[in-house]
Amino acid sequence: MVRIGLDAMGGDYAPQSIVEGVFLAYKESRDDFGITLVGEKGKIEKELSRFNIRDSLVTIENATEYVGMEESPTEVIKKKNSPIAIGTRLHKEKKVDAFISSGNTGAVMATSLLTLGRLEGVNRPAIATCLPTEKGVVVFLDVGANAECKALNLYQFGIMGSIYASYILKKQSPKVGLLSIGEERTKGNDLVVEAHKLLEKGSVNFVGNVEGTDVLKGTCDVVVTDGFVGNIVLKFAESFDGFLTSLVHKRVKQSLLFRLGAFLLKISIRDLRKVLDYAEYGGAPLLGVNGVCIICHGKSSPKAIMNAIKLSIDMVKERVNEVIKEKLLNNNFNRV
Amino acid sequence: MVRIGLDAMGGDYAPQSIVEGVFLAYKESRDDFGITLVGEKGKIEKELSRFNIRDSLVTIENATEYVGMEESPTEVIKKKNSPIAIGTRLHKEKKVDAFISSGNTGAVMATSLLTLGRLEGVNRPAIATCLPTEKGVVVFLDVGANAECKALNLYQFGIMGSIYASYILKKQSPKVGLLSIGEERTKGNDLVVEAHKLLEKGSVNFVGNVEGTDVLKGTCDVVVTDGFVGNIVLKFAESFDGFLTSLVHKRVKQSLLFRLGAFLLKISIRDLRKVLDYAEYGGAPLLGVNGVCIICHGKSSPKAIMNAIKLSIDMVKERVNEVIKEKLLNNNFNRV
Repeated sequence: MVRIGLDAMGGDYAPQSIVEGVFLAYKESRDDFGITLVGEKGKIEKELSRFNIRDSLVTIENATEYVGMEESPTEVIKKKNSPIAIGTRLHKEKKVDAFISSGNTGAVMATSLLTLGRLEGVNRPAIATCLPTEKGVVVFLDVGANAECKALNLYQFGIMGSIYASYILKKQSPKVGLLSIGEERTKGNDLVVEAHKLLEKGSVNFVGNVEGTDVLKGTCDVVVTDGFVGNIVLKFAESFDGFLTSLVHKRVKQSLLFRLGAFLLKISIRDLRKVLDYAEYGGAPLLGVNGVCIICHGKSSPKAIMNAIKLSIDMVKERVNEVIKEKLLNNNFNRV
Repeated sequence: MVRIGLDAMGGDYAPQSIVEGVFLAYKESRDDFGITLVGEKGKIEKELSRFNIRDSLVTIENATEYVGMEESPTEVIKKKNSPIAIGTRLHKEKKVDAFISSGNTGAVMATSLLTLGRLEGVNRPAIATCLPTEKGVVVFLDVGANAECKALNLYQFGIMGSIYASYILKKQSPKVGLLSIGEERTKGNDLVVEAHKLLEKGSVNFVGNVEGTDVLKGTCDVVVTDGFVGNIVLKFAESFDGFLTSLVHKRVKQSLLFRLGAFLLKISIRDLRKVLDYAEYGGAPLLGVNGVCIICHGKSSPKAIMNAIKLSIDMVKERVNEVIKEKLLNNNFNRV
């Protein structure tokens, strides 16, 4: 039976929404799985008592240290009894098959990398998120694991993203685009021009450079970028919700007619918020670590936690990491 | 009298919207100015005949070569009789005090830089656009002049952006932020960490790093980034309109109630389109060239052209370039 480790204390609504997410996962999923909740035992037990979950399925690992959302990863790494440290350790010791956290992203990333190490053949892991598009969903990576990248890293992101997308989007040969300014192969910064050459020679279905406009248009299934650009674009997208709300508020104030429509506008914005919240897609895996590690948004709803649990079960069962490893080992550039 | 050179053939709706923009500028502005329209004489005269503009104010410079929106700048530079080549030459020869084009951005940039040269003290010019925010407007630069930047360039963008914002936003000491991932000075890529140090020591009102979410929140008045990131973010923002429209269409199909609200939603999206269209702010100046050169969106409306004319008159009258030159020459880093 697959067993998923879950940071019960991470994020803004923990442990309530985490435990409720576990309940939803058992209610909605047909998979056979166990959950190990990591966090303050008393608090978790109290939350668990609210739901009707079979005792034998859920175990608790007590964690005595707390990790703040703003704490620096280098500080967090020192806390050996935090939920993140314990969860990744359990994963390393194969007591759980995956670890999910809605806590401090930087800390989860650093701790996983330190504890689990990289997957053979991978130079740098990347955080792969899903963004909604006009046509469906795009896998967008890296969104923050690497502020500084080399062409080889982007190339590997292309491979990892393509494999991940083939599972998530159920597509045989996902179209991979490289985020740049201008579609020609010579356009962009030095990094992108170099990465273009590697991706072109590689084995993914590379469609060439794509531009900022292409991400939400759904021009391709995977958009590759470095963690600096990816994080800025992701956060920019997240801010659109608030921006649009302020726009509508101004409009509503302006005219009576618009007050009538305000209700409908609000619902539409709620839609927008939902499609823009990457947690709705089950969190973002840290692809390339030697394990299944999923990072959720700090504001994850129970539904988002449920989706992350489902995603992690799928990634374990489908042996996504094995496929990535194999593909990278059979590739000419991975030792460049 | 200030005289503005205007590419009459650039953009999707030329020469109609350009000439109509000139008409609007004369109707709306109290400034005393002349316009030199550069392009196909016959077509321009035909358009001019539709409007009641005093003959003595507008002159035409015939241009016999055409520049496509997709042509590579290196090809365009060879066309000595294109509106862009003639317009920048007239500016160089001081026959006009500014030049505006809605044509091929890369070509306008390359030609201006080649013909006019850089402003003394400036290492790299930058395209500064205005974006709407929750609180008002932010000056965002560079949005595409430089795919590859050094820390010194970002530092100079901060100075040029700050001076430009002080005119545009009428603020004494605009708050300048550096786009990064994480607010701490050590966060981001190497380029940004270095630029942070320069901006901190410099003379602008530097508020430190800002994140992707801060741009539209209006956390600061100027956001500095390299042309690669800036162009991707700008184009990503421009695509939001189409994305939102598709979202609303799906909703409208889903329910009858939403069909009732569709009209109001459409108007709101039109609002969004308007606030996101940087041409509405009068185009984007290429700051740092030895002249006043304004790049407009290819889809510029007559109103946008009018605003660009007003902006160029202001920039000439306020001697923005003189202020930039002075500030950069009095600065320690400009020869680094």
